[in-house]
Amino acid sequence: MKCSKCGREAVYFAKYEGKYYCHKHFNEMVESKVKRTIRKYRMIKKGERIGVAVSGGKDSVVLLHLLAKLRKKFPFEIVAITIDEGIKGYRDKSIKVAKKNAELLGVEHHIYRFKDYIGFTLDETVEIMGARGERLGACSYCGVWRRWLLNKAAEELKVDKLALGLNLDDEVQMFLMNLMRGDVARLGRTGPYYEVIHEGLVPRIKPLREVPEKEIVLYAVLNNIEVDLSECPYAVEAFRAEIRDWLNEMEEKHPGTKYQLLRSYDKIFPLLAKTYAKKVKLNRCKICGQPTSGEICKACQFRLQVKERAEKLKFSLSQR
Amino acid sequence: MKCSKCGREAVYFAKYEGKYYCHKHFNEMVESKVKRTIRKYRMIKKGERIGVAVSGGKDSVVLLHLLAKLRKKFPFEIVAITIDEGIKGYRDKSIKVAKKNAELLGVEHHIYRFKDYIGFTLDETVEIMGARGERLGACSYCGVWRRWLLNKAAEELKVDKLALGLNLDDEVQMFLMNLMRGDVARLGRTGPYYEVIHEGLVPRIKPLREVPEKEIVLYAVLNNIEVDLSECPYAVEAFRAEIRDWLNEMEEKHPGTKYQLLRSYDKIFPLLAKTYAKKVKLNRCKICGQPTSGEICKACQFRLQVKERAEKLKFSLSQR
Repeated sequence: MKCSKCGREAVYFAKYEGKYYCHKHFNEMVESKVKRTIRKYRMIKKGERIGVAVSGGKDSVVLLHLLAKLRKKFPFEIVAITIDEGIKGYRDKSIKVAKKNAELLGVEHHIYRFKDYIGFTLDETVEIMGARGERLGACSYCGVWRRWLLNKAAEELKVDKLALGLNLDDEVQMFLMNLMRGDVARLGRTGPYYEVIHEGLVPRIKPLREVPEKEIVLYAVLNNIEVDLSECPYAVEAFRAEIRDWLNEMEEKHPGTKYQLLRSYDKIFPLLAKTYAKKVKLNRCKICGQPTSGEICKACQFRLQVKERAEKLKFSLSQR
Repeated sequence: MKCSKCGREAVYFAKYEGKYYCHKHFNEMVESKVKRTIRKYRMIKKGERIGVAVSGGKDSVVLLHLLAKLRKKFPFEIVAITIDEGIKGYRDKSIKVAKKNAELLGVEHHIYRFKDYIGFTLDETVEIMGARGERLGACSYCGVWRRWLLNKAAEELKVDKLALGLNLDDEVQMFLMNLMRGDVARLGRTGPYYEVIHEGLVPRIKPLREVPEKEIVLYAVLNNIEVDLSECPYAVEAFRAEIRDWLNEMEEKHPGTKYQLLRSYDKIFPLLAKTYAKKVKLNRCKICGQPTSGEICKACQFRLQVKERAEKLKFSLSQR
């Protein structure tokens, strides 16, 4: 088929709009979507320093490339941040990919390790807590610690905002998941923008939220961008996988469904945000100083639990 | 298995709450759900006259029985209203069922026919407009005319509110359908209650909105309530069927999903209602006098279209 814009050989068919794209116009289409998203929600202001969370996976690496390209025309700074959770055979590989891409683009790159800041790698935590298969799985520790460390890194590196590689599929899956769990409040706290900015919590932006996963993968392939496609060995989000599969099926049958769902979320979000994103004054964690609604933040609570259990294990081993 | 309340033989397992029910306690459970829904949204006030839309299908017939039972303890009036769209081999059968149930319960019963008020049965309309398979299907005419005639009946019979047999499954399917079409505004106009009451539009209540379809069918079976289970020959809601099937699958895997989805809707609804249920002053249709946002209501527009085409057809036949 021929590109709907220029008549050259098409490399992609966007079923949701019935248009064919050649390589050049596909690139332009993806890039202009990202630009529009950034502009619509005023995600980046002139001169701001943006921390890009880069795992080495397709989404974050493509995000880094897109922002690096954008910065040539619109003056802002970027710095790449990689969180190393310490997952053998997985994260070590993807970190290399993140590093290579940052170097290629001439972007400052920093690696923050669970081991250095928390005291344990995720692998060690799983071993100590016997977390796999238990109610509190690896993802619970990892999610809390990753958010905590990203925020810490952002503060240390003095970035104004954190850019995350969440794509259209991630956004609508999250929307539907929370609706099906009755967790409407959560939907009002995250979204395309922040209704309430909390002191000490670095705002997060999602410039890829209008780009389908498929287009991100294709963008990487067509532009010879090296990405790591392996999946985390701890990932067990069965509920999300069910929702993902069904949404893909519905998108196939009714092209444009994901965009419609995103539009619904975008219309509902501001109403929820006003109701649920309360202007509470956050405290500072008594241990680490990071923002928390209580006295001690969840990351420190988890760290102390793991530490305590590690010491008990050592004790019982020494008693043998 | 034994009833979780009394230890007698159970007839039903409510997976979403992990409880078993005997016949007696199942009845109580369903009835108290309906009572709670009515109370929560103040659906019925003392002494009000409630028009129950009874097609003869399971939902509307069970609703009639439940309201008839409830009225023994709480003083309000009920009157059954059946719309006869004129669908041969389908509606004629279900009308008999509606009539029998109303008689059994000693409820005043009125039948309103498309033929009498619109001038055409639905079967005739389909024949005249060649509607089956075309863009404007039978359901478009039927939906508009049914709502119009129900409102007309409610006015003529001087009822305060119209009770509809929509159940939990209907509600959450509708919620998801509208989200996946990006039609958030519609979600703000219907809901568990009305944010804005328009003069001339009889308010509609849905006392069964917290009862799963499964429980309605079982209530009918256990209590020997005669219902018509046949499906409308014109029904072709493919999109709804896909959503229904998936929700049933998810409910099976994650019991309680439908209730969670309803809770999400109920939290979102008041916010949407404030935004989308505008207090516009409705006009009266210049032809029929029913409320409309324009000059001539949709029901009259459709009626005139069908009439015009019917006359043309007659003319072209007479020319042969």
